[in-house]
Amino acid sequence: MSKRKICVVITARPSYSRIKTALSAINKHPNLQLQLVVAGSALLDRYGNAVDYIENDGFKIDAKVFMVLEGENKTSMAKTTGLGVMELANTFYNLKPDAVVTIADRFETLATSIAASYQNIPLIHIQGGEVTGNIDEKVRHANTKLADLHLVASEEARERVIKMGEDERYVFNTGCPSIDIARNVNKAPELNFNPIEKYGGVGNNIDWKRGYLVVLQHPVTTEYNQAKENVLNTLKVVHELDIPTFWFWPNVDAGADGTSNGIRSYREIYKPENIHFFKNMEPEDFLRLLINSKCLIGNSSVGIRECAYLGVPVVNIGTRQNGRARGLNVIDVSYEQDSIMKGVLDRIKQNRLATSDGIYGVGNSGEKIASIIANTDLRFHKTIMY
Amino acid sequence: MSKRKICVVITARPSYSRIKTALSAINKHPNLQLQLVVAGSALLDRYGNAVDYIENDGFKIDAKVFMVLEGENKTSMAKTTGLGVMELANTFYNLKPDAVVTIADRFETLATSIAASYQNIPLIHIQGGEVTGNIDEKVRHANTKLADLHLVASEEARERVIKMGEDERYVFNTGCPSIDIARNVNKAPELNFNPIEKYGGVGNNIDWKRGYLVVLQHPVTTEYNQAKENVLNTLKVVHELDIPTFWFWPNVDAGADGTSNGIRSYREIYKPENIHFFKNMEPEDFLRLLINSKCLIGNSSVGIRECAYLGVPVVNIGTRQNGRARGLNVIDVSYEQDSIMKGVLDRIKQNRLATSDGIYGVGNSGEKIASIIANTDLRFHKTIMY
Amino acid sequence: MSKRKICVVITARPSYSRIKTALSAINKHPNLQLQLVVAGSALLDRYGNAVDYIENDGFKIDAKVFMVLEGENKTSMAKTTGLGVMELANTFYNLKPDAVVTIADRFETLATSIAASYQNIPLIHIQGGEVTGNIDEKVRHANTKLADLHLVASEEARERVIKMGEDERYVFNTGCPSIDIARNVNKAPELNFNPIEKYGGVGNNIDWKRGYLVVLQHPVTTEYNQAKENVLNTLKVVHELDIPTFWFWPNVDAGADGTSNGIRSYREIYKPENIHFFKNMEPEDFLRLLINSKCLIGNSSVGIRECAYLGVPVVNIGTRQNGRARGLNVIDVSYEQDSIMKGVLDRIKQNRLATSDGIYGVGNSGEKIASIIANTDLRFHKTIMY
Amino acid sequence: MSKRKICVVITARPSYSRIKTALSAINKHPNLQLQLVVAGSALLDRYGNAVDYIENDGFKIDAKVFMVLEGENKTSMAKTTGLGVMELANTFYNLKPDAVVTIADRFETLATSIAASYQNIPLIHIQGGEVTGNIDEKVRHANTKLADLHLVASEEARERVIKMGEDERYVFNTGCPSIDIARNVNKAPELNFNPIEKYGGVGNNIDWKRGYLVVLQHPVTTEYNQAKENVLNTLKVVHELDIPTFWFWPNVDAGADGTSNGIRSYREIYKPENIHFFKNMEPEDFLRLLINSKCLIGNSSVGIRECAYLGVPVVNIGTRQNGRARGLNVIDVSYEQDSIMKGVLDRIKQNRLATSDGIYGVGNSGEKIASIIANTDLRFHKTIMY
Repeated sequence: MSKRKICVVITARPSYSRIKTALSAINKHPNLQLQLVVAGSALLDRYGNAVDYIENDGFKIDAKVFMVLEGENKTSMAKTTGLGVMELANTFYNLKPDAVVTIADRFETLATSIAASYQNIPLIHIQGGEVTGNIDEKVRHANTKLADLHLVASEEARERVIKMGEDERYVFNTGCPSIDIARNVNKAPELNFNPIEKYGGVGNNIDWKRGYLVVLQHPVTTEYNQAKENVLNTLKVVHELDIPTFWFWPNVDAGADGTSNGIRSYREIYKPENIHFFKNMEPEDFLRLLINSKCLIGNSSVGIRECAYLGVPVVNIGTRQNGRARGLNVIDVSYEQDSIMKGVLDRIKQNRLATSDGIYGVGNSGEKIASIIANTDLRFHKTIMY
Repeated sequence: MSKRKICVVITARPSYSRIKTALSAINKHPNLQLQLVVAGSALLDRYGNAVDYIENDGFKIDAKVFMVLEGENKTSMAKTTGLGVMELANTFYNLKPDAVVTIADRFETLATSIAASYQNIPLIHIQGGEVTGNIDEKVRHANTKLADLHLVASEEARERVIKMGEDERYVFNTGCPSIDIARNVNKAPELNFNPIEKYGGVGNNIDWKRGYLVVLQHPVTTEYNQAKENVLNTLKVVHELDIPTFWFWPNVDAGADGTSNGIRSYREIYKPENIHFFKNMEPEDFLRLLINSKCLIGNSSVGIRECAYLGVPVVNIGTRQNGRARGLNVIDVSYEQDSIMKGVLDRIKQNRLATSDGIYGVGNSGEKIASIIANTDLRFHKTIMY
Repeated sequence: MSKRKICVVITARPSYSRIKTALSAINKHPNLQLQLVVAGSALLDRYGNAVDYIENDGFKIDAKVFMVLEGENKTSMAKTTGLGVMELANTFYNLKPDAVVTIADRFETLATSIAASYQNIPLIHIQGGEVTGNIDEKVRHANTKLADLHLVASEEARERVIKMGEDERYVFNTGCPSIDIARNVNKAPELNFNPIEKYGGVGNNIDWKRGYLVVLQHPVTTEYNQAKENVLNTLKVVHELDIPTFWFWPNVDAGADGTSNGIRSYREIYKPENIHFFKNMEPEDFLRLLINSKCLIGNSSVGIRECAYLGVPVVNIGTRQNGRARGLNVIDVSYEQDSIMKGVLDRIKQNRLATSDGIYGVGNSGEKIASIIANTDLRFHKTIMY
Repeated sequence: MSKRKICVVITARPSYSRIKTALSAINKHPNLQLQLVVAGSALLDRYGNAVDYIENDGFKIDAKVFMVLEGENKTSMAKTTGLGVMELANTFYNLKPDAVVTIADRFETLATSIAASYQNIPLIHIQGGEVTGNIDEKVRHANTKLADLHLVASEEARERVIKMGEDERYVFNTGCPSIDIARNVNKAPELNFNPIEKYGGVGNNIDWKRGYLVVLQHPVTTEYNQAKENVLNTLKVVHELDIPTFWFWPNVDAGADGTSNGIRSYREIYKPENIHFFKNMEPEDFLRLLINSKCLIGNSSVGIRECAYLGVPVVNIGTRQNGRARGLNVIDVSYEQDSIMKGVLDRIKQNRLATSDGIYGVGNSGEKIASIIANTDLRFHKTIMY
């Protein structure tokens, strides 16, 4: 029997963490052959150059697809997606995969879904069924409606996808592969590297050894104009706290410039002495940094997922993670300085949680995903169940 | 108060019939301003040049968008959609509508939906919630998931859209505007024109005055290679029946060439004396032709919708209309010659049905649509209801 | 030494005849490796499906690039070219050729030239330096200005390219590869097949054995609206002459529909009994058909090139070949019926010319091209010579 | 008589200076109507946001065209151009200009030329006929070959364009509009603003009042990998000189990242105390800055043009301006530190030249351009003159 060719499209740095162990498991599976496409901002230097990490991890890339249109506004977001459809249609035409994997809910993932489904290639959607409430939500559910096989990250998500009319024989809760990485890291959780020496970055050489915060705050698409104001609030609170802090730049999105400009201008004017800024970090190192931190501040889904498993305290700011199931490690706060300050003070008082929350998986998601893809009937024709 | 600018995108000939009376109603509504975009195959001569009918009906076109990539295979279907996203993103950026209307489920309608929703323009989807079971089904439900306001054509469709997680305050059963046209035509149903004189076409000058059949058979996308075989079966049955017949060429789709080639080659070889071929007809004339016919044969949705209201007997071939609610006027048959023959003989025995079936509306859909668009809160931010 | 990878892009049926023997010679050359890209209308059924002939001739195609936008107007011509740049940029990025070959002057050849030259891939232009006087002329000379190596088809063209500021060390008169085919065919010039049996086509089964005309008339881009009128003039003359005639449909171009519609409507109305219509023919068969004809009528460059070598009488209509060097076999006429009629009567009186005119080569162009490509320094950096 | 609609496409910051006074003159001309399209990097924040300057100057923008594809490599340069063709084809289709103006030789200017010429819109090329020797050279001459009217900046350029086969009745030496601005500024040449206060920028608050250098060095496309090394050489020399210096970031190009990265990394490591960095400056202010400087260092064409007129000493580094006519104010040096150092020491010894060199015009170019455009026959059909 010839191997099933499974084409995975990675379009952004965070998507890579969400799929990495599944890539390895597909690579190792006797009946599967991995076709890896790296596209969009995952190829671009100023969004963290995910492609370098992917290659360093030893994965062979079958195609690189440049598709990001400059502008960083909503129109260019749409046009990037349109261009992505055109480019990925070519890519799939040439690679002739037996199935295509699209990941989660970034705007350009719909390009992968259209390019595959319109060419009658079975489409596998990873991490559908979640709820967030902005354009990501629309994209995620549209992906579900174009997909033939659904591999979701929680039981709640599984039930939601079925409720949307999908056939339950094609909906599986695999947990999230990001938890697999967290599990591995957690086996030897010491901070075994010097972050500033290893990753450079800009800002003061802070004394992180006496305890530190980590911040990762993304712009929220439908609140474009407030992105700058929001991040300035967080900056002021963190500056005022005067605790050593590692701050990570956001990845691309409409509004990235609001957030990035906020950070840049604050830096130039106030030169906050307790903050060191990073552009990017290898996922394992990032998790190790979190495990040993006082808490994570921001609106990253890492706080909801990996930190649930790892028991890391999280201050979750604003609406970005609304509607996603969360563990006891998380406190939700608004964009107000007061609210953020209270949240941080609350979290840094308590230690890392002793118990791990398996809400997004227990560390075997990659293998589960590969196994289901290898053993499920691949179809490209479906009908709503009601 | 300034008028709401409502941008309607028409991408194909059949979509025009499905929206025409709504266009008029929007035009007339004191609080609405119509922005009309004609795109895709609606601009192309070899797909019936819908744009001419639209202009003849007196509508002002605000933008024409060429986006159809040649090839008529599945790859070009995807690329046409990608190109459509790029072009329509521009169009909406320039027209600055308050809401965009996307119609039904053709593959390129998803381009309209992405271009609008990614730019935070409220998206109105007409005729969601239906069930057909091929790529149209995926596209239709993906449109639903990107849309903010749903104007569906039957009660069954309304319930399905709500079940998919949409907020029922934004889901309305308006019926189908095509029924509005049918209602008008039905007020004076006589065949008041000579079809061959008015529309030319090719083939014999058949004696249609002694009763005739009408055929309209489209290719079914996921059965690309069978399109030719399928249409040849219908051609043989109709040829053998030797009843005067008006046969309409299909509109564009992946597979159009299968069907069109089938028709062309059959014509060249057999020169069927009882069949006259048309490329296109004004919607009102087409309905009048149907009302006065013995029956409609094929897989057009006109058989399911307008003919239900009009009581015209229909032989519905194959899977294309699977899952759509239908009236007593329809008999379903397979692609086999035997099955088609039996269906036609059954239908032409009975007369036009005396009672009209209101399943897809009673003739006031256009006004209902305009009124709802004028009076409903226009949002572009939604969350699934469960 | 590794072989030079030479990527040839064929975008239309006529370009294939202009390069075929060079493809073979590149394939056979010990220091060259052919990369063949088939793109644009060469992939499309309704423009003669050149791709089938290419594959039947045993060439391996490395990439197929769909890029033709429907519309057949000037805007879609531009957009097809833009899309071609994007697609071919990908293709060259993946194939990594040592040089790219662009052929002649069709509008989309500039896409090949940009995609190569902007990526610093040495660009070889075939058949520059000629003069025609419409958009083809602009495109041809723009290709010259982007190209690094010029392989032209006549001495006059060589001198003109040098005059335009190109370095004469990179400008070679190779003759035209189409003459190589003509030379081969001329070795056994009998009409060894029945055209209608072998190629089908539409129209009467004419009695071509008693002598026949061949017509091939293309639309002229800058006279879009006159294309239909022009072809109707030719049709009337040929119809009136009542000599058996093989008429070939034109290939794609803005305006194709003017010409094609003219032919279609004339056929429907007048059913000219002496004309049989073909869509396409293998180049060798076409040449054999010409050799045995009374004369060729129209505006094809075949009349200027191959027919010069073969001595076939030609009635060249209108402006399309203006400025191209021509032999004694050609008579030039205007679009007027009178003028065409006089030209045809003049040509059919005389026999095929006894002497061959080597103006466009003597039959070894393919090998010359391969040899020059293998032995010339490949650069991508040049400066005008004055 | 209706006014001629003249559509000018500006795709980058430097192009604006090269056309600004012509825009004003077109606006004022009784027989002309300006249609202004701002596209490409001229719309983007990180390339200096030329669009803001254009709007501040009071010009009405008719269309904004986003077309820059991220990646900053040669493939994305090609794809940006392809996308530009598609987008600008739409734009011209909608604006229906009587002529389109394309400026100089940046890679994406060919998009303007194709979109116009393929739609039979007369194309006017500004600043053809110059010699530079890299991809710009190919693009410039290809623009010439697509253009119908040539408005060049020097007598030498005029002669070269005619030599290339253009009809001399359509080739005019207008001088360069950038000289018009220089002339105006030169009427009141005092430095009437504080550069650091007005433009911010980064780096030390240098004491420029005691005399200063200005640096503007762009990457050279075909030497992509050397861009970083080259700029580092200049940085070391300027740093070592320890004279107050205003350094301007380069505008976008393939290779921009080489240069920009070089500057960024040098700044982070050496924190050169005598250099202040600017992203952008209004053209008038920039000229005033130059007039009052000790000299200009780099490879900008401002050194060749405006500085000739203004008599500002210039150290011209490397090959970028090769082949352009230059005045006595310029000394040419290589990329070597020694060579640069010697050049700077030589230039700063001498004062600003007393005599103005009219090689690129005497300050009335904008009006000349408008007048010629208003009075010349607009054609879109041409034939090479030999």
